Amino acid sequence: MTTVQQGLLLVVSGPSGAGKGTICNLLREQMPELGYSISATTRQPRVGEVDGKNYFFKTVEQFKEMIAKSELLEYAEVYGNFYGTPRQFVMNQLQDGKDVLLEIDIQGALQVKKSFPEGVFVFIVPPSLKVLSERLHGRGTDTEEVIQKRLSCTVDELGYAPAYDYVLVNEVAEAEADKLLSIMKAERNRSSRKQQIVDSIKAGK
Amino acid sequence: MTTVQQGLLLVVSGPSGAGKGTICNLLREQMPELGYSISATTRQPRVGEVDGKNYFFKTVEQFKEMIAKSELLEYAEVYGNFYGTPRQFVMNQLQDGKDVLLEIDIQGALQVKKSFPEGVFVFIVPPSLKVLSERLHGRGTDTEEVIQKRLSCTVDELGYAPAYDYVLVNEVAEAEADKLLSIMKAERNRSSRKQQIVDSIKAGK
Repeated sequence: MTTVQQGLLLVVSGPSGAGKGTICNLLREQMPELGYSISATTRQPRVGEVDGKNYFFKTVEQFKEMIAKSELLEYAEVYGNFYGTPRQFVMNQLQDGKDVLLEIDIQGALQVKKSFPEGVFVFIVPPSLKVLSERLHGRGTDTEEVIQKRLSCTVDELGYAPAYDYVLVNEVAEAEADKLLSIMKAERNRSSRKQQIVDSIKAGK
Repeated sequence: MTTVQQGLLLVVSGPSGAGKGTICNLLREQMPELGYSISATTRQPRVGEVDGKNYFFKTVEQFKEMIAKSELLEYAEVYGNFYGTPRQFVMNQLQDGKDVLLEIDIQGALQVKKSFPEGVFVFIVPPSLKVLSERLHGRGTDTEEVIQKRLSCTVDELGYAPAYDYVLVNEVAEAEADKLLSIMKAERNRSSRKQQIVDSIKAGK
């Protein structure tokens, strides 16, 4: 009997502006079979949004029940609405042997680590504060005040690096996406994930 | 100032007949720059063997002094001769940013883990006892009794898998060598190995 090896939960996080979105998109291109999560939210659906596709739309009561029953890997309240990651939707994919990518903010990642420490936690950081400042100015979407606040936030957020398994310094996104792919290939062979196979070899199967 | 990131000490081990030699040779082909270790030994040099190239030849007294001074990452006595891995020769390469491969037996690997836990420990196992038995018979070098003893040893040795970071099941050596390469690419980005870089980004360098 061959049992399917459980998929990896890859949690990618980092300070805003570090470029985690770009890296995750490159990874998805390389691994179109990569599973994803659909967030639960209490905010109203916008026109065209489909329940169970864009979001799982919930009432505040339903959402609070999910929290109480530990049905969320993480959640947060943003401008009066709740957002969270339903555990079961992710677990079903992992149990089918599918890897799942969660691209998430730092607070969310730390919550996921508590509820699912077997995940692989990757922290994306900018190569320097100078480069981050240039990127934020280049976007042209934020005021100077907002940019300065972000840079100061980033300094604090860099302190979370040791809570992650891996740190990728985003100089060239393609190179970092390649490292992310290596991390997944490597992590599938962690001894903790191979114990079942070793046991079946020992048992002469 | 850019400091060189220390190289990785990759320790590859596993039951005899699992094929670690083949996999390590394939890795060396892919990474000709990979550093290696030269063993210290108390056995007599054979014709053509050069001190500091094939081995570091030592007297028993010198070898025991190396043990006393913790100058060996691991050592063992085999048929009355001592063999060991000099720490400094390996460390010099790591400090220059060079990765070093140690292909070593299980007892040796466990000793290295104690003296240098920052190493990356990989356990190579055969895909099944049946395949291992076929491989050992195919070699035609061992008696049936020796083969049976080895198979029974392997069952015990598989119990060491959890002491390693990674387990590779050697079905096709090329595929496992490729995984070993991914493991090295991944491990260079471990958060513990990137702390210095993160600190310098935080400090605005």
